[in-house]
Amino acid sequence: MKGETMMENWLTKRVLLSPHKPALVFDNKTLTFGELQKDVLQTAAKLKTLGIEEMTKVAILGKNNATFYVLILALQQLGATIIFLNNRLTTRELSYQIEDAKCQLILYDSTYSAKTKDFPKEQTYSFGQIETLTPMDFQPVLTFDLNQVTTIMYTSGTTGRPKGVQQTFNNHWWSAVGSALNLGLSDKDSWLCAVPLFHISGFSIMMRSLIYGMPVYLMEHFEAPTINHYLKNGECTIISVVSVMLKRLVADLEEAHYHPDFRCMLLGGGPIDPQTLETCVKKEIPVIQSYGMTETASQVVALNSQVATAKIGSSGLPLFPVELKISKEGAEICAPYEKGEIYLKAPNITIGYLNQPEFPLDSWFKTGDIGYLDDEGYLFVVDRLKDLIISGGENIYPSEIEHCLLEHPAIKEVVVVGEEDQIWDQIPVAYLVFEKDQLVDFTKIQEFCQEKLASYKLPKKYYELSELPRNAAGKIMRHQLIKK
Amino acid sequence: MKGETMMENWLTKRVLLSPHKPALVFDNKTLTFGELQKDVLQTAAKLKTLGIEEMTKVAILGKNNATFYVLILALQQLGATIIFLNNRLTTRELSYQIEDAKCQLILYDSTYSAKTKDFPKEQTYSFGQIETLTPMDFQPVLTFDLNQVTTIMYTSGTTGRPKGVQQTFNNHWWSAVGSALNLGLSDKDSWLCAVPLFHISGFSIMMRSLIYGMPVYLMEHFEAPTINHYLKNGECTIISVVSVMLKRLVADLEEAHYHPDFRCMLLGGGPIDPQTLETCVKKEIPVIQSYGMTETASQVVALNSQVATAKIGSSGLPLFPVELKISKEGAEICAPYEKGEIYLKAPNITIGYLNQPEFPLDSWFKTGDIGYLDDEGYLFVVDRLKDLIISGGENIYPSEIEHCLLEHPAIKEVVVVGEEDQIWDQIPVAYLVFEKDQLVDFTKIQEFCQEKLASYKLPKKYYELSELPRNAAGKIMRHQLIKK
Repeated sequence: MKGETMMENWLTKRVLLSPHKPALVFDNKTLTFGELQKDVLQTAAKLKTLGIEEMTKVAILGKNNATFYVLILALQQLGATIIFLNNRLTTRELSYQIEDAKCQLILYDSTYSAKTKDFPKEQTYSFGQIETLTPMDFQPVLTFDLNQVTTIMYTSGTTGRPKGVQQTFNNHWWSAVGSALNLGLSDKDSWLCAVPLFHISGFSIMMRSLIYGMPVYLMEHFEAPTINHYLKNGECTIISVVSVMLKRLVADLEEAHYHPDFRCMLLGGGPIDPQTLETCVKKEIPVIQSYGMTETASQVVALNSQVATAKIGSSGLPLFPVELKISKEGAEICAPYEKGEIYLKAPNITIGYLNQPEFPLDSWFKTGDIGYLDDEGYLFVVDRLKDLIISGGENIYPSEIEHCLLEHPAIKEVVVVGEEDQIWDQIPVAYLVFEKDQLVDFTKIQEFCQEKLASYKLPKKYYELSELPRNAAGKIMRHQLIKK
Repeated sequence: MKGETMMENWLTKRVLLSPHKPALVFDNKTLTFGELQKDVLQTAAKLKTLGIEEMTKVAILGKNNATFYVLILALQQLGATIIFLNNRLTTRELSYQIEDAKCQLILYDSTYSAKTKDFPKEQTYSFGQIETLTPMDFQPVLTFDLNQVTTIMYTSGTTGRPKGVQQTFNNHWWSAVGSALNLGLSDKDSWLCAVPLFHISGFSIMMRSLIYGMPVYLMEHFEAPTINHYLKNGECTIISVVSVMLKRLVADLEEAHYHPDFRCMLLGGGPIDPQTLETCVKKEIPVIQSYGMTETASQVVALNSQVATAKIGSSGLPLFPVELKISKEGAEICAPYEKGEIYLKAPNITIGYLNQPEFPLDSWFKTGDIGYLDDEGYLFVVDRLKDLIISGGENIYPSEIEHCLLEHPAIKEVVVVGEEDQIWDQIPVAYLVFEKDQLVDFTKIQEFCQEKLASYKLPKKYYELSELPRNAAGKIMRHQLIKK
């Protein structure tokens, strides 16, 4: 890129532009950008005594609250590379990431003390210990180098070892800009953050706050009544949710309506059932479905609420800075409605995984997801490529069978996976969680499916589970169900 | 820059995202983005027969209308480098620019036929001639290379030879993004363009339209009643103006108010008098004062209307992607309120002038303007550096004396310049245009000034003029007044 690769420190810049504007609302306390900067720089002055320099790798294990928020920004002011630890992981899983990323320091909320027992003692500090340190004179970084990796987040990886996704300032910048170009931007905006700050969904809200000059309403826990209060009184105009959150909000909303200023329920993290979407349309809840991942620094495809009904099931159109293609084995471009792997090209895509070669310039990023475009270019995500079942040479998409089974009133949750088979290579099998007191005979279920699915797609076996196996991020661990 | 330097063709992308949204309103006709693309590609197919390839240098001489608009976009679809000609220039001035830029083709509106007489015949085509060409099969460029120069605009240059400012797609992109981050972005937005498309003020509106998905209301002439109609009925929410336009709009507005959706009167091209600004505050006209130039691809500093009264006379704060410093002779950083040259660093700053070395990466751009920052970082532009008068070692800012003289009720316009002097090196002298039938004795004027200015700043001579000499762009040609 010819031209500028350095930008003024985003926090410094934001405080110059709007020092008196609210920046963070947490636990009924409000900090302006000026006040937030003061707290951040005081904390940074304490962290400085731990020897943090530019590019020092610091892991952080916290939960959504003002202390965590301030610490993250303080690390950024010191120029450190932040490794976000997921607080739902086990000690063993956390230790793997700390070692893999060669973290020089680990900071943790004492809530998670028990998880730190295997961490290297002399490099590990609780948030409380940091508080007691004597501040040291220091200068916050003057500029953010767009090429610098500022954050690393491990993909939760339902199979294999998790990989550290390196996110540059440039990634976060373009992500924030792409989101603003899609959703618009208003002085009235404030973003409710009930998703974890250690995930891209939460951290991207922090970066948007600095870039847009927008308050963040931070929630430690997901409490539907509290959140609905803010969406009904107009204090919050945008919220990021995953489908389970949306369902709880809708269930709690009853007959009331959201405030006219509330303009975006940004839905990520996978698909939602058509019934809930229809309820949202009825209740005039402006759901923006989106598609994105840690590797793309938040959403890269989004569906405008105006076409939510017309394009039900779609994730929408690639945002302005994003290119998207559906391709088979990296070469061929698929025709409309033809399924293939989703490829992306965008400046918000990671430069590469930690300890692996950087992605080549201007290359297409393989998402590992299967999808198709309709004739107007709207994306429909079908499945994860690795979840694809190939049975007797036929491609079977687990989601198709799952959607079919979920239509049965007795079935609460379902996962379909491929089981190894001597004749067919793989056969589809279904793991079912039934609604309470709604146990149904598998033969009846099979009859239900036969009306809707080609015979090769019919599950060849059914298993009942009391609940589905999920990892720390709440993703279903399909590979645990696969019998080999 | 690591990461992406190519973006999908902005027009293609915009049509994918919002084909049915209005793109251009001119002469009471509306084109959607889909319809605009159709016209643009048809015109491009005709232009293709003239042998236009990527990077072909094509000069264009037109005026604000749909034909010109479509032609500009058509050239961009072919990947040509567009050299914008100012339709107020003389043949001689135009010929200089055409030669300097080594233009391979010249396209002109037949209104300006008389000006084309010295242009190379075999390379010169009227818009009417293009219309009659037989379309040729072609593919619009798939991607815009952010590093590519897409437009060249000659700075009007009140002294010396005009220079060709090279603007890349990256420059226009960051300009549009910086503007959106400052002004916000709404689905309701539409931008009224009564400024010339061949200036950055007008062309930047075209690029914002593609990037934001926003209609442009294009005006061939500046007609205050027509424009006020659109600002009062809410059809247009933003307009770009220079001070003379703002004054005419305010004069025409009388007692009525603008529509509540009208949210930004973006004022550029130099300062405005405090009286007009006060009227705007009274009439609740949301004036956003701004500072920018061809070299910065539109505004880089802007003053929010909320602080318009508190910061009267200021151009505001540098936009989010922009760094600004006040410095003397390129080294020292000036203290608050200390005057010095304005330096800028931003990704929307030109890569350099045509036929001159490119600016080094991450270097500061010398604006040639003098200004200072107040203690909150607000910019006050004082003068052009080259207009500075140095008299007996004292720095004299012409604008200070001009502002003083303009307070005299009989004086309509004034220019103060330095005249060579054997004793003092330079002395300030004033050129005055009086209000009609308001001739005042120069001695009286001098007495008026003596109360307000230190004696070394007092004009040593006064001259009366019937009007000030202005160039084609309406800028006062100070150098014509300087007697050597």
